[in-house]
Amino acid sequence: MLLKTLREEVLEANLELVRRGLVLYTFGNASGVDREEGLVVIKPSGVDYDDLRPEHMVVTDLQGKIVEGSLRPSSDLDTHTLLYREFAEIGAVVHTHSEFATSFAQAGMAIPALGTTHADYFHGPVPVSEPLTDAAIEGRYVYETGLAIVARFKGKDPVDPMAVPACLVAGHAPFVWGKDAHDAAHNAVVLEAVARMAFRTLTLRAECAGVSQALLDRHYLRKHGQNATYGQA
Amino acid sequence: MLLKTLREEVLEANLELVRRGLVLYTFGNASGVDREEGLVVIKPSGVDYDDLRPEHMVVTDLQGKIVEGSLRPSSDLDTHTLLYREFAEIGAVVHTHSEFATSFAQAGMAIPALGTTHADYFHGPVPVSEPLTDAAIEGRYVYETGLAIVARFKGKDPVDPMAVPACLVAGHAPFVWGKDAHDAAHNAVVLEAVARMAFRTLTLRAECAGVSQALLDRHYLRKHGQNATYGQA
Amino acid sequence: MLLKTLREEVLEANLELVRRGLVLYTFGNASGVDREEGLVVIKPSGVDYDDLRPEHMVVTDLQGKIVEGSLRPSSDLDTHTLLYREFAEIGAVVHTHSEFATSFAQAGMAIPALGTTHADYFHGPVPVSEPLTDAAIEGRYVYETGLAIVARFKGKDPVDPMAVPACLVAGHAPFVWGKDAHDAAHNAVVLEAVARMAFRTLTLRAECAGVSQALLDRHYLRKHGQNATYGQA
Amino acid sequence: MLLKTLREEVLEANLELVRRGLVLYTFGNASGVDREEGLVVIKPSGVDYDDLRPEHMVVTDLQGKIVEGSLRPSSDLDTHTLLYREFAEIGAVVHTHSEFATSFAQAGMAIPALGTTHADYFHGPVPVSEPLTDAAIEGRYVYETGLAIVARFKGKDPVDPMAVPACLVAGHAPFVWGKDAHDAAHNAVVLEAVARMAFRTLTLRAECAGVSQALLDRHYLRKHGQNATYGQA
Repeated sequence: MLLKTLREEVLEANLELVRRGLVLYTFGNASGVDREEGLVVIKPSGVDYDDLRPEHMVVTDLQGKIVEGSLRPSSDLDTHTLLYREFAEIGAVVHTHSEFATSFAQAGMAIPALGTTHADYFHGPVPVSEPLTDAAIEGRYVYETGLAIVARFKGKDPVDPMAVPACLVAGHAPFVWGKDAHDAAHNAVVLEAVARMAFRTLTLRAECAGVSQALLDRHYLRKHGQNATYGQA
Repeated sequence: MLLKTLREEVLEANLELVRRGLVLYTFGNASGVDREEGLVVIKPSGVDYDDLRPEHMVVTDLQGKIVEGSLRPSSDLDTHTLLYREFAEIGAVVHTHSEFATSFAQAGMAIPALGTTHADYFHGPVPVSEPLTDAAIEGRYVYETGLAIVARFKGKDPVDPMAVPACLVAGHAPFVWGKDAHDAAHNAVVLEAVARMAFRTLTLRAECAGVSQALLDRHYLRKHGQNATYGQA
Repeated sequence: MLLKTLREEVLEANLELVRRGLVLYTFGNASGVDREEGLVVIKPSGVDYDDLRPEHMVVTDLQGKIVEGSLRPSSDLDTHTLLYREFAEIGAVVHTHSEFATSFAQAGMAIPALGTTHADYFHGPVPVSEPLTDAAIEGRYVYETGLAIVARFKGKDPVDPMAVPACLVAGHAPFVWGKDAHDAAHNAVVLEAVARMAFRTLTLRAECAGVSQALLDRHYLRKHGQNATYGQA
Repeated sequence: MLLKTLREEVLEANLELVRRGLVLYTFGNASGVDREEGLVVIKPSGVDYDDLRPEHMVVTDLQGKIVEGSLRPSSDLDTHTLLYREFAEIGAVVHTHSEFATSFAQAGMAIPALGTTHADYFHGPVPVSEPLTDAAIEGRYVYETGLAIVARFKGKDPVDPMAVPACLVAGHAPFVWGKDAHDAAHNAVVLEAVARMAFRTLTLRAECAGVSQALLDRHYLRKHGQNATYGQA
């Protein structure tokens, strides 16, 4: 993929977050990766969305070293690059403080799989990371945030990051990913809709058990995998 | 009715769902039936609403066999056609994941008749179907979804589908119908408003008893039936 | 006041309800009264707001007899005219199914005076009427709705309709009034905002006691009465 | 700073409150201070936002005596001027009845620090003032409102007004401030977002403990102070 195309896709993903009401002021960022070149393209920090142009995107290597760009990258860069290094199949990462997903993160609660809307995108609950220790917060905080996500997906209760492309960071907000920038932004938008509905479902029935594994499988697999039947071939 | 007119009406119903905020991305579909010709017109699967034209609508027979159209029909087609076969008086079906109605469906709760807004459109609670068995989910899932709706309306606690033109599918979302595509979309929009208000009413007073049968009758019958007094004659 | 001016004011009040999101489709109506001529101007029933023109407004006498206009008046006419006959100082009536006020009406709960926003407009709780008997519902239902409002304001726990210009009809929705059509629509918009905040306040603290009588008096009197200090003289 | 520039900044802050949905009709006001000249610029009372021009802003001294302007100043002027006299570092004050922050104020509850969005702007809970006594309400009410805020920040459980630039007035609504008018309006918008998320977090988990002091410190200090790493240098 041409770096120019990736810059445009990453910008477009950032703008989609704004259009869908997921970010207030500059509370969000999206990045994409070029696996062949080993390059990450990410939004600059604290620039108004109205002013963003493809050439403002910052290019770094997978360690976060700036390769191109005169602006400072998003302050969450070290989380993005760690996710690219640890989750080999993902092509883009999105971070927002979208309000309902963030409310679950603040409550330290996973978003349970309560319906088929959820199952179409997330093949099980959207997990929440363990709270960071004080030492982690006072140390390489942004990198430690990434470590907490990776620990949740690769730890003793493992989750496939391609089957559940999102994690709530406890006390913070969601990180979401996908096969490319468009897909990651789309997943972030759906995550927020799923969180809104989970919030209301739990308000109506706190002990709601959620959908069966059979329903989870059916919905997830009709949109993903070799036998997908949704959309145009 | 000319098939051309039905295509336009079905497209317009799909667009009304978008304008009223009932669908996110491509999470919804509307269809209509021409009873004389035995033909169903339905939205294609996974096409952006911005790009939809009347000629994109897919035409099938009442068994779901494609008669006209080069696009794949909505993946929910088998639910729509079953409803047309079983509910002889309906002229159109709408399916959305509108958020509050879906939250009731996820909680497995009917929407109780708590006020006159509800009574103007639904002559009793909006029922919820029984959860599908694993065998049904793993079998002809979309058809089984339709069967679950029909079982709820024609089973041991029957409901007249013309008096209550909607059903919540447990763990999934609402299906709504009406005498034509405009009417079905209108009912889907009102169902979501009624669900929002029921959610808030139950939050304020969990044990809320709902309106009397006399009020249900009065409001429903003033908008429907031979002695309707609402609107212009 | 010229009838032409009153038609325009009543139309404008109806449109304000739409602009502020208080009505869905045709779920609302506003009217105004010319006390000197004994004439009421009211929205016609079930006409799309986009198509409403001043000449569509229906003119009746205070008994609801049509004096001018070829369209059928709002189906709630008999409530409006009764309020004009019983509350001698009001100049306009608005009825909506605005969602949070309606949720309190469906729960059969008054909206308590929980803050200064409320106190600026309503000098005490916004009351809820008694449920109608089956006989009342099956009889002159719309007129009986008006009687229930009047009974609540003039009964054993009386309320001054000019100090609290709104009533929730149990199981139905709010009726709101004011000195003229602009004022009544404004009160309906504020009532809905006050209901939204009361809903959230009670969710946060169910036993919230509400503001003191001293605060109620201070806020209400700084916007109303001879010593008002708000706005430009 | 030129007074002309301050008038424009104060107008712009008022308009930002409208654009972000924080004020309904005329329920809000913003002011700014010129510390060198000892002058306060504030919105006039009860004027439609659509009609506001820089020249309509009212100029007073720090005691609230009008120096320039033919319109009556905001009825909350005495609260603003007291905050300028007591909090020597603030450059602007904003007052709104934004709905979720107001719901916390009505419930008499501080907004706890439940996540990093909060911590980026408020270095601890957003406190709520003590209810005013009847004597205070019946006396110099607007001035007493300011005294209650100051008592909360300078009393036995003191809060640094530059680290927590907002206070909820019990039974009323928030007052927010900042280093200039743009900053104060921005803080008011974020306060409302933080209140929305706190409301939902507490609904999900009433006993939510909130973030650690280490996380509070980390987020607050990365946006504020000498070692800030957010945004462009």
